[in-house]
Amino acid sequence: MVLLQANLDDMNPEFSSYVMDRLFEAGANDVYWIPIIMKRGRPGMMLNVLAAADKLERMEAIVFAETTTLGLRYLKADVHRLGRQFAKVETEWGPITVKLGFHNGELVQMAPEFKECEAAAKRHGVPLKRVYEQVRRNYAEDK
Amino acid sequence: MVLLQANLDDMNPEFSSYVMDRLFEAGANDVYWIPIIMKRGRPGMMLNVLAAADKLERMEAIVFAETTTLGLRYLKADVHRLGRQFAKVETEWGPITVKLGFHNGELVQMAPEFKECEAAAKRHGVPLKRVYEQVRRNYAEDK
Amino acid sequence: MVLLQANLDDMNPEFSSYVMDRLFEAGANDVYWIPIIMKRGRPGMMLNVLAAADKLERMEAIVFAETTTLGLRYLKADVHRLGRQFAKVETEWGPITVKLGFHNGELVQMAPEFKECEAAAKRHGVPLKRVYEQVRRNYAEDK
Amino acid sequence: MVLLQANLDDMNPEFSSYVMDRLFEAGANDVYWIPIIMKRGRPGMMLNVLAAADKLERMEAIVFAETTTLGLRYLKADVHRLGRQFAKVETEWGPITVKLGFHNGELVQMAPEFKECEAAAKRHGVPLKRVYEQVRRNYAEDK
Amino acid sequence: MVLLQANLDDMNPEFSSYVMDRLFEAGANDVYWIPIIMKRGRPGMMLNVLAAADKLERMEAIVFAETTTLGLRYLKADVHRLGRQFAKVETEWGPITVKLGFHNGELVQMAPEFKECEAAAKRHGVPLKRVYEQVRRNYAEDK
Amino acid sequence: MVLLQANLDDMNPEFSSYVMDRLFEAGANDVYWIPIIMKRGRPGMMLNVLAAADKLERMEAIVFAETTTLGLRYLKADVHRLGRQFAKVETEWGPITVKLGFHNGELVQMAPEFKECEAAAKRHGVPLKRVYEQVRRNYAEDK
Repeated sequence: MVLLQANLDDMNPEFSSYVMDRLFEAGANDVYWIPIIMKRGRPGMMLNVLAAADKLERMEAIVFAETTTLGLRYLKADVHRLGRQFAKVETEWGPITVKLGFHNGELVQMAPEFKECEAAAKRHGVPLKRVYEQVRRNYAEDK
Repeated sequence: MVLLQANLDDMNPEFSSYVMDRLFEAGANDVYWIPIIMKRGRPGMMLNVLAAADKLERMEAIVFAETTTLGLRYLKADVHRLGRQFAKVETEWGPITVKLGFHNGELVQMAPEFKECEAAAKRHGVPLKRVYEQVRRNYAEDK
Repeated sequence: MVLLQANLDDMNPEFSSYVMDRLFEAGANDVYWIPIIMKRGRPGMMLNVLAAADKLERMEAIVFAETTTLGLRYLKADVHRLGRQFAKVETEWGPITVKLGFHNGELVQMAPEFKECEAAAKRHGVPLKRVYEQVRRNYAEDK
Repeated sequence: MVLLQANLDDMNPEFSSYVMDRLFEAGANDVYWIPIIMKRGRPGMMLNVLAAADKLERMEAIVFAETTTLGLRYLKADVHRLGRQFAKVETEWGPITVKLGFHNGELVQMAPEFKECEAAAKRHGVPLKRVYEQVRRNYAEDK
Repeated sequence: MVLLQANLDDMNPEFSSYVMDRLFEAGANDVYWIPIIMKRGRPGMMLNVLAAADKLERMEAIVFAETTTLGLRYLKADVHRLGRQFAKVETEWGPITVKLGFHNGELVQMAPEFKECEAAAKRHGVPLKRVYEQVRRNYAEDK
Repeated sequence: MVLLQANLDDMNPEFSSYVMDRLFEAGANDVYWIPIIMKRGRPGMMLNVLAAADKLERMEAIVFAETTTLGLRYLKADVHRLGRQFAKVETEWGPITVKLGFHNGELVQMAPEFKECEAAAKRHGVPLKRVYEQVRRNYAEDK
C-alpha cells in the first residue's frame, strides 16, 4: 500500500468532494483531507490517498488533472484490515444491515450501515439517533 | 463595535493574507479566520472582522471586492482593551520594545515586540527564543 | 436573524451531514460546523444555524431531536445579502448557469453553479477545473 | 448571558487546560477554544467563556491574569437549557448514572455519565465502549 | 519505531482521552489526534500512535477494543530524541523541576515541569504564567 | 527525501512563521504545520519539513534551536514533482508570470504568480481576484 499526499494552497475548496469521488471510483482504499498551514500562513488542505501500489499511476493522473498541485509525495504504508461480516437486524422500521469486525476471531466492532439508518429515519420521520440506537440494541439482544 | 462575518467555500486560500492586509489598512481593529465545515462537507473559512460601526461600509466594500462571498453577517460586540504602555529593555543585541497591559492599574501583560525580536535574531544569528527569553528576563530584573 | 449555536462533544460525527440536511429543509438560511476544543481537551463540534426569528422553534426542535446537546445559545445577527441574478453561459459542454452578486448596483461576484459544472465534467469525462475555468472565461468574454 | 472572547497568538498552549479549570471553578457556564488563523498567518486560539452577566468581572480578571491577551470582546447571548434529570441504570459492573434532557416535557436526550463509565471500565478491565453501550441498552429496556 | 494510524468518523469524541490514557499506560511513546475530513465531508479524527515495533500487537489490541475502527495503517519512522537531564530550580513557591534537552552536547531546550508549576500556582493562588516565568528566569540566572 | 516531524505543545505560536522562514532559507523543499490534539487535550502544532536526506542535519539543528521540541521523527518519502516552465502573460496592468506544470508531456497546471498579482493589484488599486482572473483568461486565449 502507498499513502499519496499533496499540499494544496490555491484550490477552490468546493472541488474537494469531487476529487474524493473520482479517487474512490478509481479504486482508492481511502481518501481524506488534513487542514494545514502553509507558507506565509496560508490555510491549505493536504489530500491523502491510500491505494494499492498498482493503482498509483491512475491516482496520480486524477490528482494532477483535478487539483492544482505541482507535486506529490509517497509514503509506504502497511495496512491491517479487520475481517468483516455483515448481518441483518430487525427494527420497527424494517431490517437494517450491520457491519461486524473481527480481531483474532473475536468480535470487536459492530456498526449500523449509516445510509440504511438515514433512509429509514427519513422514510418514517423519526430521529436518526433513535434508529441508530435501536439497531445497536436489537443486535446486542439477538446475539 | 461590530463583528462582521462571511463564510467562504469557493475562495482560493492564497488570497487570505491579502484580504487581511487590506482590511487592517482600512482601519479594522482585528481580522482573523475560523476554519469551518460547510454544506456538503466542504472545508471553508469564515472571515471575521472587528471594526468600529462607522467603518463598516468601508469594510463591507473590501470584503465584497476581494472575496467571493454573496453575503455578510453582523454581530454587535463590546470591547474591553487593556490600558497599554511601551517600554525599552536592554539586551546584549540592543534595546527591544515591550508592550505592557494594565488592568485596574495593575500590570498583567508584558510582551516583547515580535518584529524587533525577529530582526535582532536574524541580524545576530541567534535563536529567536533566546532573544525573546532575554527580553522577558531583563524586563523582570529591571523592575 | 438569529444565530443558534450548540457545542457537541458526544455525537457520532457521521450524523453531521444528516442534521445539516434536515435544518436546510426546514428553512435555515445557513448551517455550518466549527471544530472546537471542549472540557478535558475533548475535540468537539459547534453547530451553527442562521435562521429567521420565526423559524427558531422549528430549528430548536430539530437540533434537540437529532443531536445530543442539552442546551443552545442564541446570538442576534443582522444579515446583508447581495442582490443576485442568474445568467447562462455557453461552453463546449452545453450552457451552464452562473450566479451574479451586485453591491450598490455594481457586479462584484460571479460564480459558476457548482452542481452543473460537476455534472458536465462527469458526463464528458473532462477535469472539473477545465469546465469551471471555461465558464468563467466565456462569461467574461460575453460581457 | 454573555459570551466573552479573546484571541491568543502568543500563549503557550500547555496553559489552556489550566485557564479552563480556573474559569469553570469561578462559575463559567461553558468554556471552549476555537482554533483560528491570525495576523501574518499565525495559528492562534480563541478563548470562549459563556457566563452570567454578574460573573463577568470575575471572568475578566482570570482571563487577564492567566492568558496573554491585551483585550476582550463581549457578545450578548440567550441560552436555552433543557430541563434535566438524573437516573440510575443497573449494569453488570454496578449502577451508572444517566443524564436525561426534556424538551416540552418529552425526553429527547439520554447520556451516560462519562466519568462513571470510565471508572467502571478501568476497574473491571473492559472496553469503555462496552460499558457505554450497556448503559444505553439497559436504560432503554427498563423504560 | 512504528507510527500507527486509524481514521475514525463514527466514534463519540468523549472517548478520545480515555483511548490516549490506555495507550500511554501500555507503553506508547506518543499519542496524538489529527482532525481530518473524511468521505461525504464528515469531520473525523485520525488517531496516531508512535510505538516500538515490539509493542505493536498490544497497541493494536487496544485500538480495536477501545475505538470504532475497522482498520489500521503502519508507517515506519525513525526517532531522534534529545539527551535529557532534570534539574531543580528555586522559586518563591519552592523548588520546581526543569527538563533539559541536549543536542550534540549543547543545551538547546529548557522546560519547566508543567504539573509542578500548575500545583504551585494552585497552592499559592498566583497566576500560572508568573510561576512559569520565574522558573525560566531563575534557571537562567543560576547558570 | 525525508519528512521530518516534531509535535509542539509548549511553543509560542508567534514563532511559527520565523521557524518556517529559517527552514526554507536552509534549503527545505516544503514546510507546513498540522494542528493536532496532544496529551491532556492540549492543542498543539506538528511541524513538517520535507527535505533531501543530505540536508537533514542542518534542518535538525534549526528545529532544535528555534522550537521547543525534545524529539523528532523521520519518515521516508518519495517525491514526484511535475516538470515546470514559466511564461509571461500580458494584462492591462502589465505582464505577469504564470507557472506551468506538465505531466507526461501534457499541460495540467497553470498558476499565476501570486506575488506579482498582489503587487499589480496594490499598485493599480484593483481587486486581486480581477487581476488573477484576467491572467488566467489571457493565458487561455493566447494559447
